[in-house]
Amino acid sequence: MQRKIVFDLLNIDNGEIFAIKAAKKFSEENPNYSLILVGNEKTIIKLFKTIPNNVKIINNSSILHKTANPRDALRLDTSMLQAFQLLSEENADGILSSGDSGSYVILATLKVSRINGISRPAFMPIMPSIVNKHFLLLDVGANIEIKSNYLVEWFKIANEYYKIIFNREINSFGILNIGTEDYKGLEASKEARETLKLNNKFVGFVEPKDLINGNVDIALSDGYAGNIFLKTMESSFLGVGSYLKKIIRKNLKTKIGGLLLKKELNQFKKTFDYRNVGGAFIIGLNKIVVKAHGGSDEIAFYSALKQIKNAIENNIIEKLNTTFLMGEENGE
Amino acid sequence: MQRKIVFDLLNIDNGEIFAIKAAKKFSEENPNYSLILVGNEKTIIKLFKTIPNNVKIINNSSILHKTANPRDALRLDTSMLQAFQLLSEENADGILSSGDSGSYVILATLKVSRINGISRPAFMPIMPSIVNKHFLLLDVGANIEIKSNYLVEWFKIANEYYKIIFNREINSFGILNIGTEDYKGLEASKEARETLKLNNKFVGFVEPKDLINGNVDIALSDGYAGNIFLKTMESSFLGVGSYLKKIIRKNLKTKIGGLLLKKELNQFKKTFDYRNVGGAFIIGLNKIVVKAHGGSDEIAFYSALKQIKNAIENNIIEKLNTTFLMGEENGE
Repeated sequence: MQRKIVFDLLNIDNGEIFAIKAAKKFSEENPNYSLILVGNEKTIIKLFKTIPNNVKIINNSSILHKTANPRDALRLDTSMLQAFQLLSEENADGILSSGDSGSYVILATLKVSRINGISRPAFMPIMPSIVNKHFLLLDVGANIEIKSNYLVEWFKIANEYYKIIFNREINSFGILNIGTEDYKGLEASKEARETLKLNNKFVGFVEPKDLINGNVDIALSDGYAGNIFLKTMESSFLGVGSYLKKIIRKNLKTKIGGLLLKKELNQFKKTFDYRNVGGAFIIGLNKIVVKAHGGSDEIAFYSALKQIKNAIENNIIEKLNTTFLMGEENGE
Repeated sequence: MQRKIVFDLLNIDNGEIFAIKAAKKFSEENPNYSLILVGNEKTIIKLFKTIPNNVKIINNSSILHKTANPRDALRLDTSMLQAFQLLSEENADGILSSGDSGSYVILATLKVSRINGISRPAFMPIMPSIVNKHFLLLDVGANIEIKSNYLVEWFKIANEYYKIIFNREINSFGILNIGTEDYKGLEASKEARETLKLNNKFVGFVEPKDLINGNVDIALSDGYAGNIFLKTMESSFLGVGSYLKKIIRKNLKTKIGGLLLKKELNQFKKTFDYRNVGGAFIIGLNKIVVKAHGGSDEIAFYSALKQIKNAIENNIIEKLNTTFLMGEENGE
């Protein structure tokens, strides 16, 4: 069966070149996938040279910039909005963009139907930890405020995604909180904990250190704390990286020291670079929605396309619809 | 005038030895300061050898452990509770402890009166940034939920503290948020922004990277996001530290590399080690309340005592009472 992915190519950080190159590679390697590319037609044709049968080009050079007003995402005729319209019109399976996260979440929420039984979508990145193991974190910004059932629903979805992304079952999951004590945290988190503790893989409240140290495979959170966690972790690692660069440049002695550690430091940088970790899913919707990092290169975009393909071929949306339908019948 | 500081010596991480040694040094160097030490009498006498005139010992060996029930802090006869009782009975100027933060905040809130015009106390650590400059962050856990006026009041207090801690005026301050766009974040933060933007040092909403990169001198936050930020930043830096240690130990080449960078890496570690940054203030109260890090050594405890002395000698409590009294009269 021919599967379809809509790809919004426009990108404020690195331009669209990397996105187009990745699309070219993916379309060549996956003839059973149709790519609908939204972007600057001339640039696309120039880089593709010949347009293969499984690629459709929609000309739109209007990039959605971060705006003061989130309604602009719905109002302005941008490549991102058009990509969502095509997702529905073309009955495509998935969508990829590296544009503004806030707008992407708004459009995904309003333009894609939710899975039956899911109250809200969530933004779910694949996060690195310091022990060479990844974890899923959700939500990181789609929902500033939550109800306890959101966390319970999100766990079920993340649990299914974990299996297809990592090809194994989770060992443990928890709720991100400001302390592990029962009395600490949001009321919604405390209520969700009471429901989730029936699952023997649930370790209760966890703190940022547990996530960074790789102690859980899925970390549930409201979008507010999740976003602060994500950005603080990212900026701390980037900060340390630039600090290390500075001290290595200090003098001849430190330069030699840096040279001797170069291989390992590059590996470290690679591990904590978001571009190597894949795109973030917006989950809970009836399409595969993936947000690639703004600074993505060709490899990162290509990985994100493969990530969508993997989700499609594992029938994740169908599985989730069945899970929640059964959940409701069983009164779970 | 004889000034008084109550010092709860008991400590779950490193025991009380470092605290006692720091108290001894401080009492010898500051004869005009009375120290009221709450802890194990025998251990104190053993380390002091002779008890100077300006030291009073209160025997209490009952440490307050982290509990499932925060009311235990008020119910159990621990050194921390007794320290707060002495703060009031002895009319002392300040209090220091390195015990459980959650309990310390609860006791401070309930046992010490608030400055007139201040709605809630806040937990305010002095934070490191990657540019060798510190900033004040508040709140980091005393208030999970906030109203907009809390942030406005806390700014006024933090602004005064900044002057006495760093001996200069601030250049800029902002509100920690999940984005810089006006529409993002908590309603209380948005309301506070409208009031605070009348101050020309206010830079609006800031993100974790702005704090880590040292772009603001004061960062205002609800206690929930502030706590997640604090713990994520701390754990990220600790995580990188242990990761670096591991890669340096890998083989002879990396060991030599590590050796050549040793001085700089130690400096890095020192910069981001909380013990070198001083205690955290609980502000908004009519006493100087400082929480030292659980892992404090003698130098850290001694610094925390000096930090309290500095606040006392700058008459910060009197100044703040006047500021808020004037603020109210002026309808500010």
